[in-house]
Amino acid sequence: MTPRDPGWEARVRDSFARQAFTAMLGARMTALAPGRCEITLERRDDLLQQHGFVHGGAVATLADTACGYAAFTLFAAEASILTVEMKVNFMSPADGEVIVARAEVKRSGGTLTVVSADLFAVREGKESLAATALATMMALEGRADAPKERPR
Amino acid sequence: MTPRDPGWEARVRDSFARQAFTAMLGARMTALAPGRCEITLERRDDLLQQHGFVHGGAVATLADTACGYAAFTLFAAEASILTVEMKVNFMSPADGEVIVARAEVKRSGGTLTVVSADLFAVREGKESLAATALATMMALEGRADAPKERPR
Amino acid sequence: MTPRDPGWEARVRDSFARQAFTAMLGARMTALAPGRCEITLERRDDLLQQHGFVHGGAVATLADTACGYAAFTLFAAEASILTVEMKVNFMSPADGEVIVARAEVKRSGGTLTVVSADLFAVREGKESLAATALATMMALEGRADAPKERPR
Amino acid sequence: MTPRDPGWEARVRDSFARQAFTAMLGARMTALAPGRCEITLERRDDLLQQHGFVHGGAVATLADTACGYAAFTLFAAEASILTVEMKVNFMSPADGEVIVARAEVKRSGGTLTVVSADLFAVREGKESLAATALATMMALEGRADAPKERPR
Repeated sequence: MTPRDPGWEARVRDSFARQAFTAMLGARMTALAPGRCEITLERRDDLLQQHGFVHGGAVATLADTACGYAAFTLFAAEASILTVEMKVNFMSPADGEVIVARAEVKRSGGTLTVVSADLFAVREGKESLAATALATMMALEGRADAPKERPR
Repeated sequence: MTPRDPGWEARVRDSFARQAFTAMLGARMTALAPGRCEITLERRDDLLQQHGFVHGGAVATLADTACGYAAFTLFAAEASILTVEMKVNFMSPADGEVIVARAEVKRSGGTLTVVSADLFAVREGKESLAATALATMMALEGRADAPKERPR
Repeated sequence: MTPRDPGWEARVRDSFARQAFTAMLGARMTALAPGRCEITLERRDDLLQQHGFVHGGAVATLADTACGYAAFTLFAAEASILTVEMKVNFMSPADGEVIVARAEVKRSGGTLTVVSADLFAVREGKESLAATALATMMALEGRADAPKERPR
Repeated sequence: MTPRDPGWEARVRDSFARQAFTAMLGARMTALAPGRCEITLERRDDLLQQHGFVHGGAVATLADTACGYAAFTLFAAEASILTVEMKVNFMSPADGEVIVARAEVKRSGGTLTVVSADLFAVREGKESLAATALATMMALEGRADAPKERPR
């Protein structure tokens, strides 16, 4: 798990900072290392589903984001990233003050990177496994990870 | 695909109305039939990822919600619903003014229901397939689909 | 769904004929069209699991094979194929004299192709949906789809 | 990970012994503990795909079997097991003299159990990660894990 790009950390943090959606949810990048990423979300009333737990879509967003940036740490400087696919198993309700997603690259390839993540609900300081994810990320070489510009 | 609960439509719409997260995103239930559900989301700047497309997590939220309520149309009146797992394949960027998720039950069982969904980006009135999902939903019999109450 | 290789049909059938595993199971390619493939397996006592149904692994093999060759119909003449990932939902026991997997390409891209398949158990001429699959296939351009040779 | 059934080991080994399909492939149960199972397969010419590697369907069979029996160690004595769904990511060709699947229960619930597995190709004594799987298993209480009997 050796980054090819010496500037990996700034590149990853800068990309995350440009994600309007995760910023709007209040998700924070709380740990980052080559091949690893942790994203943390605080429970908020507008993140809940009909039973009063954090919505599965918000949980999936954390999983996707943690997996994506874990993979992105290992990409070349000039590569962009796409999620090819992601599977999430929801094992218990996301019932906590905080949800933490911890992703780790399982295999980093030239084009495809496979990443797994465990997601924990933290309640009164105690973590319980709420979900687990397995995702495939794709490197698009030679395309900067920047907003698409188009005339509107 | 015959609903067991004659009040299925009100029950589904009421449950969706209690989802704070999807309401906050602006998701609307735009079609509903036994075993089918369509959820529509309008592009908003705070729903985007770093490339300027609708975030995969928002797309996954639509998929989860459409699949869940498609299944929920067929549940008994007193049953609650959980997402067991969901897989989403992202096939092209969610690049549209509107994202539409259309889910259809593939098999409705006593405990588990399997649902698939296609998600389309609508751009200048033209739909293109952006993602596809396959999910497993679980019926919890005898538990009303209402917010958990707990002392805080 | 227009094949890029005019010789797609011979190329697909030849590749399938070189799969020792599916031949050993008795799987046959019973239909083939651009973007579509059907694989059929007859129940045999040595294909069963502990409950007397066709083993989930044999069902998954059919799904993988049908999805792979549905995608392969659309590949360039000089490309090889890999399964990136596959998900199978088992909906009812594969209880039939025959199992049929029908795969259809959902999106054919330059590198990745997404394919879904439905698998039916046929019992006394009646089909019932036993499983459904969603898979990602990868084209390896410039590598012939031939057995690897290596010194032993 | 405490088995509820003191006779778990004999129950699991007996069930595996009744799987005609895995026996026909030559798969062996090489390790078993509460919540864990290892299945090993030796490369054989009739297990290969068109490139000369072990077929993805055989790899998926190992994953399904290892995940199923890892879950089954924790089931009640009178419960049967079904695979609800399984996802496999194929990360490198299964190029080895031996393929080993190691499964571990991530969460054991009343009805559903989530299991992950890593699959390794062993070549000249060296293991390399070939695939990873994430599966959901279901306990059917009160149904013995025995062959279905039916008049023919």
